[in-house]
Amino acid sequence: MDASSALSRIGLAGLAVMGQNLALNIADKGFPISVYNRTTSKVDETVDRAHNEGRLPLTGQYNPKEFVLSIRRPRSIIILVKAGNPVDQTIAALSSFMEPGDTIIDGGNEWYENTERRIHEVSEKGLLYLGMGVSGGEEGARNGPSLMPGGSYQAYTNIQEILEKVAAQVKDDGPCVTYIGEGGSGNFVKMVHNGIEYGDMQLISEAYDVLKNVGGLSNQELSEIFAEWNRGELESFLIEITADIFRVKDEYGDGDLVDKILDKTGMKGTGKWTVQQAAELSVAAPTIAASLDCRYLSGLKEERENAAEVLREAGLKEEKEVKPGGIDKKRLIDDVRQALYASKICSYAQGMNLLRAKSLEKGWSLNLGELARIWKGGCIIRAVFLDRIKKAYQRNPNLASLIVDPDFAREMVQRQAAWRRVVGLAISAGISTPGMCASLAYFDTYRRARLPANLVQAQRDLFGAHTYERIDRSGSFHTEWTKLARKSDAVVGALN
Amino acid sequence: MDASSALSRIGLAGLAVMGQNLALNIADKGFPISVYNRTTSKVDETVDRAHNEGRLPLTGQYNPKEFVLSIRRPRSIIILVKAGNPVDQTIAALSSFMEPGDTIIDGGNEWYENTERRIHEVSEKGLLYLGMGVSGGEEGARNGPSLMPGGSYQAYTNIQEILEKVAAQVKDDGPCVTYIGEGGSGNFVKMVHNGIEYGDMQLISEAYDVLKNVGGLSNQELSEIFAEWNRGELESFLIEITADIFRVKDEYGDGDLVDKILDKTGMKGTGKWTVQQAAELSVAAPTIAASLDCRYLSGLKEERENAAEVLREAGLKEEKEVKPGGIDKKRLIDDVRQALYASKICSYAQGMNLLRAKSLEKGWSLNLGELARIWKGGCIIRAVFLDRIKKAYQRNPNLASLIVDPDFAREMVQRQAAWRRVVGLAISAGISTPGMCASLAYFDTYRRARLPANLVQAQRDLFGAHTYERIDRSGSFHTEWTKLARKSDAVVGALN
Repeated sequence: MDASSALSRIGLAGLAVMGQNLALNIADKGFPISVYNRTTSKVDETVDRAHNEGRLPLTGQYNPKEFVLSIRRPRSIIILVKAGNPVDQTIAALSSFMEPGDTIIDGGNEWYENTERRIHEVSEKGLLYLGMGVSGGEEGARNGPSLMPGGSYQAYTNIQEILEKVAAQVKDDGPCVTYIGEGGSGNFVKMVHNGIEYGDMQLISEAYDVLKNVGGLSNQELSEIFAEWNRGELESFLIEITADIFRVKDEYGDGDLVDKILDKTGMKGTGKWTVQQAAELSVAAPTIAASLDCRYLSGLKEERENAAEVLREAGLKEEKEVKPGGIDKKRLIDDVRQALYASKICSYAQGMNLLRAKSLEKGWSLNLGELARIWKGGCIIRAVFLDRIKKAYQRNPNLASLIVDPDFAREMVQRQAAWRRVVGLAISAGISTPGMCASLAYFDTYRRARLPANLVQAQRDLFGAHTYERIDRSGSFHTEWTKLARKSDAVVGALN
Repeated sequence: MDASSALSRIGLAGLAVMGQNLALNIADKGFPISVYNRTTSKVDETVDRAHNEGRLPLTGQYNPKEFVLSIRRPRSIIILVKAGNPVDQTIAALSSFMEPGDTIIDGGNEWYENTERRIHEVSEKGLLYLGMGVSGGEEGARNGPSLMPGGSYQAYTNIQEILEKVAAQVKDDGPCVTYIGEGGSGNFVKMVHNGIEYGDMQLISEAYDVLKNVGGLSNQELSEIFAEWNRGELESFLIEITADIFRVKDEYGDGDLVDKILDKTGMKGTGKWTVQQAAELSVAAPTIAASLDCRYLSGLKEERENAAEVLREAGLKEEKEVKPGGIDKKRLIDDVRQALYASKICSYAQGMNLLRAKSLEKGWSLNLGELARIWKGGCIIRAVFLDRIKKAYQRNPNLASLIVDPDFAREMVQRQAAWRRVVGLAISAGISTPGMCASLAYFDTYRRARLPANLVQAQRDLFGAHTYERIDRSGSFHTEWTKLARKSDAVVGALN
């Protein structure tokens, strides 16, 4: 065997949970891989797993130079370290041994502008760069994630065969990977994916809240309902795992584990980027924003407990949240299902519009139907619903919003009565449904030809001389509102 | 008269609407002022107005050097030019003639971090700096704005007597100005003020929408209602001008002018900063965010008209928006008043918490009661409501939220039934009330001791091993949810 056949096809540096599992996945698909980590015990650990999981073609390396040189040119090296400084440090350590035509792939949840900076920096050494979003958690990394690589197209083609084997596979739709676009587009798409994920989870938690606290459903019943929903239009990973969660007993005592969990949501911090970028691009993304707000507020557990007490002392009587015999359970369950689905459509409409606005600004030419396709498997938001989104954009790539796709529009219309009933019921019962409310308000605002914004424009013109447009003639107009209003006074006074 | 008595007390550069009017205001209060503008015709215009408006002590200057030298030391120069590069250019032009101990005051809507950069830059020349928010539009600038100066305390004391004379005066509460804090705090406070202003305007537009489209009120009736509301707890500048707006007739034809205004809201771009900063600080500000979203969506006029058409074709029947004889008008009006007030409390609670979070992060020690006090006059959001906020923070400077101030809590409890009725009615009628909904959802989330976030934590632990806390024992826990759920399967299967 000559020296070159001993070289690896690809390399991966950074062997925490995601990196380790992705490396094993790559080896498992038959691509000889070199791995490296600064803390070398992780390298040993990964080598051991590769051996145990089927003598996979994975080689451990213990210093940057040998690691780089162990890979066949043009080299592709995936980095999976903590976003920010560690990425820069790792790039610095490795790039000094890399050669023109080689590629660095950052697989972490990096801020897209950092990727764009690095694309520029490494290009001075003749290196190519990809910022690649990876979704699916530990299980996805090991068995088939959704991959979102953006940056150098050449770099993508260099590893396309690997990515296509490694990614999740969806029957009749192929591997959950596609070349996203230039620059930091891969990271941006991953960021919006995460925002959409937050929205999905928020909506599901609201459905739970209403069914439990208004409908009085038990965990057993909730498990059955979510399992049933997983056989219909809501079929998805998140619905499936929710059905499972309600069945798990508390190992420490009586009852169900879910009821023992503290209601304080943690988060990684990348969710805020989605909201900030939406504001930057003047795109309304209220469902995603509501999911973030709920995470912030859930973190204020002591404040909430105190507020409940203060309001009780101020005279707030809780609506009897469970009305046994007063609620048609079957109808409520079906109404909630419809409300959840309709709310999802709006949430995804917002996410897709955010992607499109950025795509226009950056010239990325994002293919929204392709994004829906690669999210059908591997990632946390995977769902049959995404197939319908893919088809909507295939029907019309320039769709202004999912809401105006004829099929989705019909579904919204069919579900809107149930949607309004659920939100109205929750409001009467004092159960907040911020995500469903935000989605419904978005729908009822986007679909209205005439909004009360005329009043806002009048106010702005009155106090700031900002001018307004008219519905019946072109141009910008300014009015001395206060003078004219008081003149009316004088006229009316004279008439009386 | 010796040379020094011919020197001005203060200077102002930048004679667009705000600058020109503020300069005249200062002269009108008896402080000799030098003014300068790059386009010199503006200087002549200002000098003419000073002469016509009472031979005010205002001197025009035509080049940076003479302008600076015409001011008595230690000099204070207010700059009112477009934020961004123009500010840097003006500072560069003037500072070369300024001397240690002199002060530059930026009165524009600048991003607070730019102020902090400039504070640092000018300090190298021994200059002091203030970033000062100015609210009240043209009228406020001329007759009494609300002023929010932050930065060097010494610089503030140098002009305190001027600011206190120039600011709006509120009976029994003094001038609408206070030293805000260090660094860019003045600009940050102005930014949040603007966000709150957006929220107030959004809520008023929703009240209008419901009264008009659900209640069927005429503009005449709306004018009377808002005038009546301006005599009660909602008494404020924005309510007052809204009453005026509904009375103005269209100069071009029949009908009322407000109905002829195109429902596309413009905006300056600073509103997005508030939302972005809230996300940065993990503070929920959904009412302010909803007001921004509505501005974005109102801008998509053609898309909305198209969406209305598409949904009509898909079968959406508009709820008959006006139900003559089916709505108790009097009760609806009173319900809307209560809903508007309760929504306002939540909106201000969000704004105040945003200010407090930033204050903690930056060590500004913002006095929230003082901020409420100086907003009682001069600025766009001025209202008697702010006096109640001032008192709430005087009662308890460490108030976690306005919602838990005993007086506000009582008011929320009294109004919540009406609030829920209004929002529920709007939802049934297909009228979106994003701001009121967001405020109500915020209230119903913040006041709940137990949220459905336990489910979200379970999901995050299942797919990402993120761990969760328990309600009954300390520590972080992780569970193999799927294994245990399927094990339940096996057990149940065995039992059946």
